[in-house]
Amino acid sequence: MTTNKSYYKNIYNYEHTPNLVLNKNFKLQNGKMLQKANIAYQTYGKLNKEKSNAILICHALTGDQYASGINPITKKKGWWHDMIGKGKVFDTNSYYIICSNVLGGCMGTSGPKSINPLSKTFYGINFPEISIKDMVKLQYELIKFLGIKKLFCVVGGSMGGMQVLEWGINYPEKVKLAIPIATSFRHTAQNIALHEVGRQAIKNDFNWIEGNYIDKKVVPEKGLSAARMVAHITYMSEKSLSTKFGRNKRGFNNISKIFSGNFEVESYLQYQGSSFVKRFDANSYLYLTKSMDRFDLSEKYNGKLESVFKNNTCKWLIISFTSDWLFPTSESRHIVSALNANACKVSFVEIESDRGHDSFLLKVPRLYKILRGFLIGGKLQ
Amino acid sequence: MTTNKSYYKNIYNYEHTPNLVLNKNFKLQNGKMLQKANIAYQTYGKLNKEKSNAILICHALTGDQYASGINPITKKKGWWHDMIGKGKVFDTNSYYIICSNVLGGCMGTSGPKSINPLSKTFYGINFPEISIKDMVKLQYELIKFLGIKKLFCVVGGSMGGMQVLEWGINYPEKVKLAIPIATSFRHTAQNIALHEVGRQAIKNDFNWIEGNYIDKKVVPEKGLSAARMVAHITYMSEKSLSTKFGRNKRGFNNISKIFSGNFEVESYLQYQGSSFVKRFDANSYLYLTKSMDRFDLSEKYNGKLESVFKNNTCKWLIISFTSDWLFPTSESRHIVSALNANACKVSFVEIESDRGHDSFLLKVPRLYKILRGFLIGGKLQ
Repeated sequence: MTTNKSYYKNIYNYEHTPNLVLNKNFKLQNGKMLQKANIAYQTYGKLNKEKSNAILICHALTGDQYASGINPITKKKGWWHDMIGKGKVFDTNSYYIICSNVLGGCMGTSGPKSINPLSKTFYGINFPEISIKDMVKLQYELIKFLGIKKLFCVVGGSMGGMQVLEWGINYPEKVKLAIPIATSFRHTAQNIALHEVGRQAIKNDFNWIEGNYIDKKVVPEKGLSAARMVAHITYMSEKSLSTKFGRNKRGFNNISKIFSGNFEVESYLQYQGSSFVKRFDANSYLYLTKSMDRFDLSEKYNGKLESVFKNNTCKWLIISFTSDWLFPTSESRHIVSALNANACKVSFVEIESDRGHDSFLLKVPRLYKILRGFLIGGKLQ
Repeated sequence: MTTNKSYYKNIYNYEHTPNLVLNKNFKLQNGKMLQKANIAYQTYGKLNKEKSNAILICHALTGDQYASGINPITKKKGWWHDMIGKGKVFDTNSYYIICSNVLGGCMGTSGPKSINPLSKTFYGINFPEISIKDMVKLQYELIKFLGIKKLFCVVGGSMGGMQVLEWGINYPEKVKLAIPIATSFRHTAQNIALHEVGRQAIKNDFNWIEGNYIDKKVVPEKGLSAARMVAHITYMSEKSLSTKFGRNKRGFNNISKIFSGNFEVESYLQYQGSSFVKRFDANSYLYLTKSMDRFDLSEKYNGKLESVFKNNTCKWLIISFTSDWLFPTSESRHIVSALNANACKVSFVEIESDRGHDSFLLKVPRLYKILRGFLIGGKLQ
């Protein structure tokens, strides 16, 4: 496990990233105001003279703005490093790529571990509730600041896909291509239930201290680690777990003193949990999972998703993966159906992959080909 | 949550159930010895003169010997109450029903919360590791004690089904009908991973105290509750969660102070977790889940399940449920295939149900009909 010292040094230092601070109050969907809201971001490639080549990439629950290159916190490659760069799918020779940390996140953008400018103390669980729509509204401020009138493309997977949907619905005139991947227009009871287990694990941690662990200089590592473990299982398919680990065993270790040895899959999950806590904030995890659970595009139309896309002018590409049981293809079909009911421009691809929900983060050749083709098609029109 | 006082009164008092104490050492599969091992059990109906009407019912992970009638600890109906009784599927007018608490359990049979007769202290995590085969071996001692030469039937679901498989394989001459329901011959990596999350939640609990909570008179309630929550999700199908709860909301409650309200599914899971800790022991949960993860009938035959059933003489009925994603039908098909490869007597039914793994505990009419028919057929032969 990480030491608290390195943890605090790593994720409480915002100087690693460009950061736009708003000079006005930022109004949230629930009516509350955020003062001096800020958004941390990264860009790759160059904005052209016409400012017509910008692609906004929206990250998932535990992602961040370091989509490409080396992440200065984890020292690892960005989460879409293989997708972004010269000659890659999101080709920095042609496109200007923007990726920002979401509102409520923990990598520089306003969130529970930011300082409240009024009280000068950490927000913690006094940070206001936020929605996916709020995340997108803050991204919109960044896009305006960068002088971009219309995004060539908005793209993202999972919670990133939810942001793409909000972009296409709330700012259709600002988006040419919209690509939500491996996502849904609202969480099912099972999605909510799985998130709730993670939240309970965090809140059960002795070091969570009702969300005030930052002031006490401790970290609810065990709870956050357990939350990550259960989430990680949902990101993989049964087949990918079986292929990767099966029932392979490994010897004694310090984590399990009771039983005579472990399965590899157990050690792997323990590692996933313990490395996650070095880069993520437990309160952020509570806020972001809750914003996903609350997300429901059809809510204000009494469940009628068709009404959401009335007169929508974006060009949509919806992508799902065969073995994704967290956001199965049936969820994407609802969106495609609603878009078609409005005679919107929509393409839909279900990609064969046995690697589960995580497929959108992995080198799935068909995903790469389809995205590349759709972007080229978008430029021609 | 329960008070520690009532918890200790409830589950540390063994006087609520008949209890057979062995007068010899009990040798476990790993070579270790248990002294004065005991097995707590319940019976329903009467053993006939020929002692040919006995049915052994094996309970699942969190079940107990109170399969029928009112459970004296929970004050609720037994877990198969609707299945066992006069005129019911397991008709106590005709059959003598036996159900015992498993080895490693916490309802009276030897387990981590028993007193070690040598040290006179609670076993805790000094209880030896146990296997599904050990559970069955202890049940065999009970059957001998009751004077039964051959069981008419052994039946059980989930971990109970694993015990049925061990019965049919280790004591084929002692079993006429064997009915493993909603089970598998070995856990997949995903099964193991999901159990490991629960174990981590328990071990992360501040009150677990390296398994020594009994001496300290505390209970690792939060960890055990979280373990139950994640398990409960796996027992239900996505559809059954959606049908039961969907995205229904409920108002404020004391459990979530941060966010403005909860989903019903969250409150339900929290309730499931907090009521579970009143009747179950956290260390037992560790031992029993581990014994399920370790269970692998094909292990000693290098993965060749066919070899397990060579010359097997039992009459088998294998049952699975369409929406069970914890033990999907494909797992049962492996067993059926291995039995058929040995020309064993085997019937197989996949029952249509959208209620997930828990279907074996619920009033699924087709399950009832099939069991009733198979028992009648078994009597005729």
